[in-house]
Amino acid sequence: MLIVEQSIELLHEMRSSCMSKGKVYLVGAGPGDPGLITVKGLEAIRRADVILYDRLIAKELLAHARPDAEMVYVGKEPGRHTCTQEEIVRLMLDEARRGKTVVRLHGGDPFLFGRGFEEYRALRREGIPCEVIPGVPSATAVPEHYGIPLVLRGVASSVAIVTGTEDPAKGRRFVNFKKLATAVDTIVILMGAAKLPEIAQELIQGGLDPDTPVAILRAYIEPEIRQVTRLRDCVSLKIQPPVVIVIGRTVNVQE
Amino acid sequence: MLIVEQSIELLHEMRSSCMSKGKVYLVGAGPGDPGLITVKGLEAIRRADVILYDRLIAKELLAHARPDAEMVYVGKEPGRHTCTQEEIVRLMLDEARRGKTVVRLHGGDPFLFGRGFEEYRALRREGIPCEVIPGVPSATAVPEHYGIPLVLRGVASSVAIVTGTEDPAKGRRFVNFKKLATAVDTIVILMGAAKLPEIAQELIQGGLDPDTPVAILRAYIEPEIRQVTRLRDCVSLKIQPPVVIVIGRTVNVQE
Repeated sequence: MLIVEQSIELLHEMRSSCMSKGKVYLVGAGPGDPGLITVKGLEAIRRADVILYDRLIAKELLAHARPDAEMVYVGKEPGRHTCTQEEIVRLMLDEARRGKTVVRLHGGDPFLFGRGFEEYRALRREGIPCEVIPGVPSATAVPEHYGIPLVLRGVASSVAIVTGTEDPAKGRRFVNFKKLATAVDTIVILMGAAKLPEIAQELIQGGLDPDTPVAILRAYIEPEIRQVTRLRDCVSLKIQPPVVIVIGRTVNVQE
Repeated sequence: MLIVEQSIELLHEMRSSCMSKGKVYLVGAGPGDPGLITVKGLEAIRRADVILYDRLIAKELLAHARPDAEMVYVGKEPGRHTCTQEEIVRLMLDEARRGKTVVRLHGGDPFLFGRGFEEYRALRREGIPCEVIPGVPSATAVPEHYGIPLVLRGVASSVAIVTGTEDPAKGRRFVNFKKLATAVDTIVILMGAAKLPEIAQELIQGGLDPDTPVAILRAYIEPEIRQVTRLRDCVSLKIQPPVVIVIGRTVNVQE
């Protein structure tokens, strides 16, 4: 009788182990410096069975993974898609259903102009446990690297963070720069390198002073860029992405 | 002759050691979870001779300090100032000039509505080496904790992060909420608990749909809050600070 009970128990255990779901961690890798990931994010990398990683993350982070961890590059490059968003989600679902601990490493923060939320929603809809570990956004850290604040008592009380290209594949924009021009004190544009000339024009048309200082910045990724100019001069500027663009009076408050 | 030369060398060494400047690290402690500090930020805490810490940081972080490190609480509480901003800067200058490694721990990110930039500028003006280690901002991490994105393809392309109270001591505001109402897709208000009723009214006057969803959130700090309502209902709401307020369509896209 005891042997039968033990066997049944064992069968139950095996069954629940086969059916046990894995878990997906959507981790913000920060702005590109391996030291700027969170402690929790690094721990998730150390535990992971499978790591899906983006193009702009610090590759040094992958050295912290277990030697047997599976690494999958899912970076998207302008004009060249290594892995579609649907494939990324499918891969995470499959691995989690096989009981794996999956880490999806996003550059910056997973929810701030990454596709982290879409992934989070898709996983939750399928009943897969999913945890978001936020990251240091490039939008705040890159200006900070150059000592540029986005807000400052008495100078700037509001900052808008916007995308310069809503859909990189189609080049469309949905941000109303004419309205934005005088609604906030500081504007941070991500993915805006190619569109800056027309954005600058719209901001000027919207009433923003053509002399407003503009910083075009790249940090934590080589080669670094720190170019400070005026809004009026942006209408004819050619910039290589990726950059963080800061427009507003705080650009010039360092001295 | 040799002894004289050696003595002179020793004197030079002693002199430069006496005059050697310390360094100040302005560290973002993140939104309140000790695991959400950056790896670099935690390393700075471990090395510090002196740690100046804010009110809303995770106290567990202080346990990583050296046993002989000096801890100074410099938190500001509404209506009660433990330590003025001038005193904080004076303390950092003094300790750095004595050759100490000073860590100044800010809640969230040092430059995003903290006084980190003012400290950075004051230290630089005095020639004190100063490094900013960015942190995960509460403005992004708290909504993320509840699965709320601030931007989302096809729904929201722009987010404004603003302060609800420009000067907590005087209760003044400088953000033009009427203009902001229709200029961005999502609005995040920090330090806005007391002012939400009048801000909601201004946003409605500015043309924002009174049915726009609003999330009032507190995470990583007990007790957690997750209240979802409509803009029209905010005009009579009483909220205990601190909270992060998110206004926009992305509040309701989880399902």
